Amino acid sequence: MTYRIEHDLLGEREVPADAYYGIHTLRAAENFELAGRPLHPQLIGALAAVKKAAALANREAGLLEPRLAAAIAAACDEVLAGQWREQFIVDALQGGAGTSANLNLDEVLANRALELLGAAKGDYGLIHPLNHVNLSQSTNDVFPTAIRIAVLQRLKPLSEALADLQAALQRKEEEFAGVIKMGRTELQDALPVMLGQEFGAYAQAIARDRWRIYKAEERLRQVNLGGTAVGTGFNAERRYIYTVIEKLREVTGLGLARAEQMMDPTQNNDVFAEVSGMLKAAAVNLAKIANDLRLLASGPAAGLAEINLPELQAGSSIMPGKVNPVIPEAVRQAAYQVMANDLAITLGAQAGELELNATLPLIADNLLTSVDLLQRAALVFRERCIKGITANPERCRALLEAGFGYATALVPYLGYERATELVRRARREGRTIRQAALESGWLTPEQLERIFDPYQLTRPGIAGKN
Amino acid sequence: MTYRIEHDLLGEREVPADAYYGIHTLRAAENFELAGRPLHPQLIGALAAVKKAAALANREAGLLEPRLAAAIAAACDEVLAGQWREQFIVDALQGGAGTSANLNLDEVLANRALELLGAAKGDYGLIHPLNHVNLSQSTNDVFPTAIRIAVLQRLKPLSEALADLQAALQRKEEEFAGVIKMGRTELQDALPVMLGQEFGAYAQAIARDRWRIYKAEERLRQVNLGGTAVGTGFNAERRYIYTVIEKLREVTGLGLARAEQMMDPTQNNDVFAEVSGMLKAAAVNLAKIANDLRLLASGPAAGLAEINLPELQAGSSIMPGKVNPVIPEAVRQAAYQVMANDLAITLGAQAGELELNATLPLIADNLLTSVDLLQRAALVFRERCIKGITANPERCRALLEAGFGYATALVPYLGYERATELVRRARREGRTIRQAALESGWLTPEQLERIFDPYQLTRPGIAGKN
Amino acid sequence: MTYRIEHDLLGEREVPADAYYGIHTLRAAENFELAGRPLHPQLIGALAAVKKAAALANREAGLLEPRLAAAIAAACDEVLAGQWREQFIVDALQGGAGTSANLNLDEVLANRALELLGAAKGDYGLIHPLNHVNLSQSTNDVFPTAIRIAVLQRLKPLSEALADLQAALQRKEEEFAGVIKMGRTELQDALPVMLGQEFGAYAQAIARDRWRIYKAEERLRQVNLGGTAVGTGFNAERRYIYTVIEKLREVTGLGLARAEQMMDPTQNNDVFAEVSGMLKAAAVNLAKIANDLRLLASGPAAGLAEINLPELQAGSSIMPGKVNPVIPEAVRQAAYQVMANDLAITLGAQAGELELNATLPLIADNLLTSVDLLQRAALVFRERCIKGITANPERCRALLEAGFGYATALVPYLGYERATELVRRARREGRTIRQAALESGWLTPEQLERIFDPYQLTRPGIAGKN
Amino acid sequence: MTYRIEHDLLGEREVPADAYYGIHTLRAAENFELAGRPLHPQLIGALAAVKKAAALANREAGLLEPRLAAAIAAACDEVLAGQWREQFIVDALQGGAGTSANLNLDEVLANRALELLGAAKGDYGLIHPLNHVNLSQSTNDVFPTAIRIAVLQRLKPLSEALADLQAALQRKEEEFAGVIKMGRTELQDALPVMLGQEFGAYAQAIARDRWRIYKAEERLRQVNLGGTAVGTGFNAERRYIYTVIEKLREVTGLGLARAEQMMDPTQNNDVFAEVSGMLKAAAVNLAKIANDLRLLASGPAAGLAEINLPELQAGSSIMPGKVNPVIPEAVRQAAYQVMANDLAITLGAQAGELELNATLPLIADNLLTSVDLLQRAALVFRERCIKGITANPERCRALLEAGFGYATALVPYLGYERATELVRRARREGRTIRQAALESGWLTPEQLERIFDPYQLTRPGIAGKN
Repeated sequence: MTYRIEHDLLGEREVPADAYYGIHTLRAAENFELAGRPLHPQLIGALAAVKKAAALANREAGLLEPRLAAAIAAACDEVLAGQWREQFIVDALQGGAGTSANLNLDEVLANRALELLGAAKGDYGLIHPLNHVNLSQSTNDVFPTAIRIAVLQRLKPLSEALADLQAALQRKEEEFAGVIKMGRTELQDALPVMLGQEFGAYAQAIARDRWRIYKAEERLRQVNLGGTAVGTGFNAERRYIYTVIEKLREVTGLGLARAEQMMDPTQNNDVFAEVSGMLKAAAVNLAKIANDLRLLASGPAAGLAEINLPELQAGSSIMPGKVNPVIPEAVRQAAYQVMANDLAITLGAQAGELELNATLPLIADNLLTSVDLLQRAALVFRERCIKGITANPERCRALLEAGFGYATALVPYLGYERATELVRRARREGRTIRQAALESGWLTPEQLERIFDPYQLTRPGIAGKN
Repeated sequence: MTYRIEHDLLGEREVPADAYYGIHTLRAAENFELAGRPLHPQLIGALAAVKKAAALANREAGLLEPRLAAAIAAACDEVLAGQWREQFIVDALQGGAGTSANLNLDEVLANRALELLGAAKGDYGLIHPLNHVNLSQSTNDVFPTAIRIAVLQRLKPLSEALADLQAALQRKEEEFAGVIKMGRTELQDALPVMLGQEFGAYAQAIARDRWRIYKAEERLRQVNLGGTAVGTGFNAERRYIYTVIEKLREVTGLGLARAEQMMDPTQNNDVFAEVSGMLKAAAVNLAKIANDLRLLASGPAAGLAEINLPELQAGSSIMPGKVNPVIPEAVRQAAYQVMANDLAITLGAQAGELELNATLPLIADNLLTSVDLLQRAALVFRERCIKGITANPERCRALLEAGFGYATALVPYLGYERATELVRRARREGRTIRQAALESGWLTPEQLERIFDPYQLTRPGIAGKN
Repeated sequence: MTYRIEHDLLGEREVPADAYYGIHTLRAAENFELAGRPLHPQLIGALAAVKKAAALANREAGLLEPRLAAAIAAACDEVLAGQWREQFIVDALQGGAGTSANLNLDEVLANRALELLGAAKGDYGLIHPLNHVNLSQSTNDVFPTAIRIAVLQRLKPLSEALADLQAALQRKEEEFAGVIKMGRTELQDALPVMLGQEFGAYAQAIARDRWRIYKAEERLRQVNLGGTAVGTGFNAERRYIYTVIEKLREVTGLGLARAEQMMDPTQNNDVFAEVSGMLKAAAVNLAKIANDLRLLASGPAAGLAEINLPELQAGSSIMPGKVNPVIPEAVRQAAYQVMANDLAITLGAQAGELELNATLPLIADNLLTSVDLLQRAALVFRERCIKGITANPERCRALLEAGFGYATALVPYLGYERATELVRRARREGRTIRQAALESGWLTPEQLERIFDPYQLTRPGIAGKN
Repeated sequence: MTYRIEHDLLGEREVPADAYYGIHTLRAAENFELAGRPLHPQLIGALAAVKKAAALANREAGLLEPRLAAAIAAACDEVLAGQWREQFIVDALQGGAGTSANLNLDEVLANRALELLGAAKGDYGLIHPLNHVNLSQSTNDVFPTAIRIAVLQRLKPLSEALADLQAALQRKEEEFAGVIKMGRTELQDALPVMLGQEFGAYAQAIARDRWRIYKAEERLRQVNLGGTAVGTGFNAERRYIYTVIEKLREVTGLGLARAEQMMDPTQNNDVFAEVSGMLKAAAVNLAKIANDLRLLASGPAAGLAEINLPELQAGSSIMPGKVNPVIPEAVRQAAYQVMANDLAITLGAQAGELELNATLPLIADNLLTSVDLLQRAALVFRERCIKGITANPERCRALLEAGFGYATALVPYLGYERATELVRRARREGRTIRQAALESGWLTPEQLERIFDPYQLTRPGIAGKN
């Protein structure tokens, strides 16, 4: 392999001649090997977006020669298009509050821009990673801004996936609108509900998640780009500061705004903890729905068996015909991981010290992973589970008839005491409440028919009087 | 002791004659002894508010005799005023999804209402805990509604405490507006900031917490009262359902609304997880500020010693004159507890099953405890710490002058290379950057004066050119 | 009220004349109001044990007049016997790393010892809280030592409660040894098991918990008493240091030992995190068993209904005859709280700084609460749930026969393909595997009888060939 | 691309002709895309080890033709050697409790064994993934056994890395044995300690971590291989069961043992929660040490600056000469991630239901990731941080002299009151305690010299009298 020589404050190092990264990246890649994987790709793209906006703003502020700015911007566009990903080699859990990630971008963009200008990689006299690519910036405003952009960009597909999931649940709400079944509280037989109503409750919960994502986006729009190292804007000219956010809006298409007091978002990371808390609430909903579906599909013989999940793969290596609720199981695991990631984010967010928080890489990695997990979980949940669910209406009705849930419907007619007596009699004689009620003669068959009408039983009011 | 006899489905029990609670409460108190303490007092009050609203709505719907409704409402008022608290004896971590808490209220209110009507305790023929006090209700709509009310009521003082804390921080922002000092990133000397700016960043973070509390309140306003056991409104008459929320608004003064799909809030508890996530974000901020203050006040000789915390108590049993940052330490612990409670709430919220979640008592207990902890922490933080903080401006400036933070301000004038050379020279000769720069002759004393002007150094732009 | 005047470094304060606590306690009680409750009673007792051991060791080292030592020791004995608890008024979540708790003890013991000697409270010339009661000690060795003692003392009843729980589970293992039923994996019908075997698996898990408690005790025996403020033993005479642990062993009856390097346990709290991790593992087991029992007892008609939990209280305020699994629900909540407390302990333990960890009060409070919760949960679980569980053997067998679990037993005889064909045929015709197999003629009734023998089916090997 | 046709219960599918995996793997890879990465490589190896042991045991039990067993074992050896990793394509967070991972192994091994026998891939009549490779096994005993093996195998390098870290800390303990400095409690100046003693305390904590790893290994040695689907050993012949563990010991070199009651480890996962709890305790120590080093190295001018961390990379993109504590920052993030993973493992472990726990893939992924993170963190901590730490003895001594820590050493000579007076006088006059004490005339210079001797000050007893 051939090498070029680069140097920094600590001395010289050989860098592979064909590498776009430079000495800072090289040292960082050697220093950190913890996660064993690089930055999240979306974060690399977001960093490139920030770099492009800065180059354009620097040009407009007269700080950067148009030719150089154009070359840097072109290099950014390539990274934004997904190129050069193998050049971003710094570990996701790096120390330095993102400095190495920032320098990795600076070096790759500088060398690629040099190439685009026909110069050699490493010819930093022409385009310098720090003096030109990082001009008017600091890791401490670039990196937090990029995290916000990356999360915002990933929240869009999450929001769509949740919208689709909600729609799929609502279709089941309609499809199962007439399937009456036993409602259960504390896993004990309670009152009749429609299977469709259950899916309606799930859809409501997912609707709330969408609303939360929307709120989370609001939260993330305030960025500290222009604040440089400690949020005071030190060494960033005002012309640049007032322009760069506008450029960033253009580059990203996101409604970003500069924070009024930029020291605050430079050092405080409660916003990420809050957004993660919202994601965790979505995870709570996914876990709950996944659990319910596993319960409702339990069986086939020795379980509830009220619904059927689509059969996707053989369930057992030794038991013929066994099919497992693998998608709800996968969804639940994704949800648990999101809850755990929330802890990592919280631990990181509370660990800020004075003007900065050195755990930003940890926060970014966990937050983006959580968004991905939720998005994929929502997608697979809808596609490979919800959409294909079918109901067993006879089984649903049989379990309802066998139980004593109907007895509560008779209380307004018979009073609590006689209703309880019916329950006891039915239990003793192994009959249903319907049968026992019929035989009691306390109510006519017509009355019972009206009381036990599925729609009467599952709407507000006294069944039989609505 | 004398007793009265009460009975339920399981048989008879002696209840102390002077007890307002009854057999259900008695059994529950025996069954559960886990937390070793009763329900949060605010939750007891909120349950009484729900009971009062139900009594009034039942009366208006013609379901409850006015005389009885009035007696029940009067009993509720007493509980709301803080009376009879010793009668609420069921453990905070009870099983049954709050059923025992609900029955405890039903029994105490029935017996007290009986007494108010001149009847004997236990004369349930006249006023029955279930048939009258609990009329048109189920634990499963009463308890979740009461949790929301209790949290909303406790969020008010929290919000006020945060507002006061923010104001105190802002006063310090003004007071220390001219105290220039070293800003630190990753605990390393970085760039100059004003001490006031640091307090400004804290104030911003707390302002965000207030906004979050406000958003959390929005979240909690949708209640499922009227949904009864599974959210379908079974056995609750429409006249009652449409009235009870209005009554509840009157009783509580809170802007509550009925959820459209009541099965959803009966079984889904993501809202509590979300609100807890917001409280956790506030805890993150308190922890961060508390840590910073401890760092800034470290010393007195072998630490940073840039600020002084009020001396509140002797710090050591063996070291003369030692004073510890006890309030920030207490605040940090409260913040950690809130983060831990968030996990309990998350665990509870994800554990819902089908039509209900049996961990509501756990959720309620942790959520109310978190609100209390934050409110008390904010209060004590402001009163016993923030308000009394004083600065050591000379120390602040001395540390700044001793460090190399000034060098960055010279980069626009000298370039990175010469600035670095100055740093090396200063280090080697044990002098400050200011001295080394003066002696270099590269800049005039007037230029340096202008560049090193505190306000130039801590505002956006190139110091000396603003 | 009458007062006495006390003073400290910060000035004078009036202390209620009849208070045993003094000015330090008074200030601390005012400074901290976070948890809203005092130290855990066991911790107060443990602190008294340390104080007594120190007094005895100081006397033996010739540092404390025998008469004074005797009076202090006598006061300690009273606190150990549970007296004067109302005098310990400092909040559980105090700042100062336990200093205020230590001073609260010092003051109460000094004043009570004075009284025992016939002197007046506040006559600190004779017995001084710091100079005599706290002699040779620092909060920083006293408090961590006391936490270890308190936890060790509370682990005993926990261990006993777990032993009793294990025994109760084993009795059910025997009682249900012959009750064959469907085993379920992923909530899907799998293979036959004995209900007794399920309880046997629970018993094994609890046995492991007992072993863990035993291991946790080992961990906690190394104390830093004698290390004083930073673990170097500063100002503690060697005669005292070598004696005090022996005295502590005598006072507590615990096999305590002095840590070799005392700076380590003064500043490092990983041991508490580890012990909490063990408690969390026990919580995992309790949660899992509680969940299983709720599943197995679900119904009565529309659930599994394989077992019956004891009926302890009415389950619903509106549904006649509903009985809920309230004890498993309470146990699960306790388990969740223990998991959450583990997070508080972890947050605290990682927050140590240099020679000390200021979050010791948080750690102590959560750790002792966790031990209490587990002990009470184990107790109530056994007494009010496990002991009274009954089986529904017919229901168990019916569900097994209805399912296709038997088919797997035929694989060794028919091969996977024909077994699968049988499953399909049975499903199609609504018959059981047993019926389908009989009719297939592939196996004789005698063979089937032997293959489907309950004991053959639930032991290692090929059913029918064992 | 060319394909071969495979079929399962759900129908036919085209499998790429050169793929070693088969239809089950294909379906699973399509069903799950959550983590976006495959199983941990160590787990794939461990599964191959189980498969090899099973093949050998099946052969010895006469259940598998020697020629087939040999081919399967040879294929296992290849996987154990790291081959065919690209064939294991099922997502780490799969549903199905590991079934797909197990089938992925079965298919790859069957096809590779076929190839080794000269047969074509897909020729399952000769070697069938289920009938031969999975013979006598179930996912439910294979997968939990493999997790234990994988973790045990990864704990070895972790243990070594911790041993090396401990040794490096001990070398610093010796190197800095004579560097006296201020000890700090609650970040306030306290008493003198030796810098070496601080590293000694760190070394002790790491020693405890090693001991914990050792204990964790004990925990993991009991496996359920032979228990098949529900732990009863259904369809696994006794000859096989009694042989397979011995084979597994041979294949892995690990001291594994069969659990007595195999239903227990099939369904209970508290052991993983416990082991994770131990890893979390190690994370607590790493986080604490990392934090301390950052504090001690803070500065260079406006911090403590008692030690220097090795300079590994430039610290800032805009501040000349800034060097950050990047390794401690990375270590802290790794530690936080381990704490978060512990939550994922806990959530998984508590979610077991009846005879199985469907979250095993989540547990395995997080547990192995935690071991990796700790191992890498320990390695990089030692190599790139601890080994290169240097002390600033003059700075250490200067801070000590400037502070009032010495005053406590005078208490035994002057009493608390006069010592306090000295502190006040020194403060007022801006002098050191040493100077103030000298001028007071209360002690001779020789006495003071003896009292303030560094070794007297940092060992048990009254300084000056030892």
